[in-house]
Amino acid sequence: MALLVMKFGGSSVTDAEAMRRVAQRVVTARRGGSQVAVVVSAMGDTTDDLLDLAGQISPGTLPQRELDMLLSAGERISMALLAMAIQQLGVPAKSFTGAQAGMRTDTAHGRARLLDVQPERVRRTLDDGAVAIVAGFQGISTDDDITTLGRGGSDTTAVALAAALGADVCEIYTDVDGLYTADPRIVPSARRVTRITIEETLEMAAHGAKILHLRAVEYARRFTVPLHVRSSFSDQEGTWILVGRPLTEDTMEDPLISGIAHDRTLAKVTAVGIPDRPGAAAAVIEAVAGAGVSIDMIVQNVSTSQADTSDLSFTLPEDDGPTAVAAVRRLQESMGFADVLYSSHVGKLSLIGAGMRSNPSVAARLFSALADAGVNIEMISTSEIRISVICDQTNLDQAVRAVHTAFELDAEEEAVVYGGTGR
Amino acid sequence: MALLVMKFGGSSVTDAEAMRRVAQRVVTARRGGSQVAVVVSAMGDTTDDLLDLAGQISPGTLPQRELDMLLSAGERISMALLAMAIQQLGVPAKSFTGAQAGMRTDTAHGRARLLDVQPERVRRTLDDGAVAIVAGFQGISTDDDITTLGRGGSDTTAVALAAALGADVCEIYTDVDGLYTADPRIVPSARRVTRITIEETLEMAAHGAKILHLRAVEYARRFTVPLHVRSSFSDQEGTWILVGRPLTEDTMEDPLISGIAHDRTLAKVTAVGIPDRPGAAAAVIEAVAGAGVSIDMIVQNVSTSQADTSDLSFTLPEDDGPTAVAAVRRLQESMGFADVLYSSHVGKLSLIGAGMRSNPSVAARLFSALADAGVNIEMISTSEIRISVICDQTNLDQAVRAVHTAFELDAEEEAVVYGGTGR
Repeated sequence: MALLVMKFGGSSVTDAEAMRRVAQRVVTARRGGSQVAVVVSAMGDTTDDLLDLAGQISPGTLPQRELDMLLSAGERISMALLAMAIQQLGVPAKSFTGAQAGMRTDTAHGRARLLDVQPERVRRTLDDGAVAIVAGFQGISTDDDITTLGRGGSDTTAVALAAALGADVCEIYTDVDGLYTADPRIVPSARRVTRITIEETLEMAAHGAKILHLRAVEYARRFTVPLHVRSSFSDQEGTWILVGRPLTEDTMEDPLISGIAHDRTLAKVTAVGIPDRPGAAAAVIEAVAGAGVSIDMIVQNVSTSQADTSDLSFTLPEDDGPTAVAAVRRLQESMGFADVLYSSHVGKLSLIGAGMRSNPSVAARLFSALADAGVNIEMISTSEIRISVICDQTNLDQAVRAVHTAFELDAEEEAVVYGGTGR
Repeated sequence: MALLVMKFGGSSVTDAEAMRRVAQRVVTARRGGSQVAVVVSAMGDTTDDLLDLAGQISPGTLPQRELDMLLSAGERISMALLAMAIQQLGVPAKSFTGAQAGMRTDTAHGRARLLDVQPERVRRTLDDGAVAIVAGFQGISTDDDITTLGRGGSDTTAVALAAALGADVCEIYTDVDGLYTADPRIVPSARRVTRITIEETLEMAAHGAKILHLRAVEYARRFTVPLHVRSSFSDQEGTWILVGRPLTEDTMEDPLISGIAHDRTLAKVTAVGIPDRPGAAAAVIEAVAGAGVSIDMIVQNVSTSQADTSDLSFTLPEDDGPTAVAAVRRLQESMGFADVLYSSHVGKLSLIGAGMRSNPSVAARLFSALADAGVNIEMISTSEIRISVICDQTNLDQAVRAVHTAFELDAEEEAVVYGGTGR
């Protein structure tokens, strides 16, 4: 008998009617002969409502342990209601908290990492023929405190549960019907991708595509969990994410390029006029890393401002901007460089595709498409299956559209528009 | 150092402002030098809102296991917010679920009974100088499922926690400032009782007074937990409930009678014309008890309708009325009695006071007061510290007022009016 993990985000369970629709889908899968474990997020606005209450009580920084306790109530409500809705349709169902489902985490409240998954009660429930419903986003720490897994946490719960149960597939239900070759809000002619490798999905998630959380994709790759991203509002197949591209005739015809991700959440720091001596650039990067900032891309080149000096630029998450600038400024006098520049007005475009490995013309085609569109490339970084460029944020949408067209990704019909939730 | 358990019901934590007021009270107690454990119910309307959602999803009977999972979210929200509010005032605080606080119950969802209380984490938290906040109303079953304790459950949690911790006192905060000699909505001149024995409180709770739940009072008596019922809106002392009346000069002057409880939730069943043979009455009562109905009072007397027969009347909770009538009707033909009568229009007045033990004139004074007020007594039952009478429900308020005056319980000023919550 097939074992299916179905994950429903908050936008799939906004109210009683949506809950009944999800229940009907679960029941159909169960009656179709599969064992079904469901992972569910908090209903629609629950998290925001709880945060609002907390903000009224504690205007400053919220204490993380208690915030996790508070927010974990959200899944408790949605999973109990979903169990009721499924039972109402005549199929037995039981809900389980993160702790009951054996989701053991470290003690990092608000961004806990899973250490161990022991879903014995879930397995027993499935073996009894019932549907097991597991709270997404939450676990219990090694100190027996309630923890939450941070953004994208419910996806991670679903993938981890699928891995621990040895599920045949982990279905991620969302409000769009799969992964697209680009964000349809920017490229209306973006096409739904029917199959994609998990490595490409990882690059997409890491470089700005928001539909699946990076951590969940990493987990899926590590434990070889096949994912199927699809819409909770239709029965049509979505995007299958597979570990290693299956060399069937069908996929042989898949395009070279899987898609284009973009990211508007980055900033750029430049140290201007660093003296041209060994180790100078490394000292700057070390100082920034030492402040806990994760650096995205780095470029060093000869300074235009002063002889025998160079400029060092790096990109980083915008939220870490002030920390990074402060860290660099602390070095400015001792190292004797001219200035520190900061811009949050940068955009990143990433072209992703397994086909890139064996096809050197991809980079040339990308740069030429950007040049034709009048987009200036500020920085470049590459992996085996990705090329990313940094440009001015003003040009980002235009750049995405130009590259999408240049790689012949445009569909004939317009796509539905992305949404998405945080858990 | 004194150890204090403070229990706050849902009406004490209706919103952020009320939550801050409760936090201030807890912090004042902690700074005053006591160790403080807090038991808190779900905020104001949370339970009703969750039940409403569940009703939209599952219009029939709600599955109890999932209902407990759902409702337990309510305390999770209130206790996390209260911990934040206390921390905001500079005092460390940690919240604990029923499971984390060691509240082990049987598996009777919706009305679980505590089997064992092992509050090790609460104790460690108190020893660390922090305030421990425990979810009222909920526990974890021997099957590791979330359970709720039913109506009055948070009071039971508080008393059980106080017993397990060996607390010096369990303070029950509510929206009135103590126990009254009668319900002030009926007797505006009712007086607040400053001290009362736990046995009298038990009789009050068992016979219709709603301020403390019977189960919590039973628990307090069994484990000798001193209770202090007081208002969350004022600093004034409320009612102290003590195990064994302390024979101080102060209490020597306490009135003979502690108060008058009343109950409008009963019904009366009468089997008319039961043949006058041994065991006939017992057979009727056994049939009713066998149907799971708990009988309150029983009266048998010679029937006025037919010679050599008697009428048997008993009172019972109104909700069990149809079940009881059906059980009696099943015997009617085989036993050959004339009719089964049912009335939900009965009222019960109970006069409670430890002084009654040694004072036979109390009953005479009660009956004479009722006669003077024109109230007809239908049934009577007594214990060592209580006399209860059944009358027509129409006369109940009048009866309560007349008896209150006859026993000189009237205060000079009018009381505040009762409220109260379900958990």
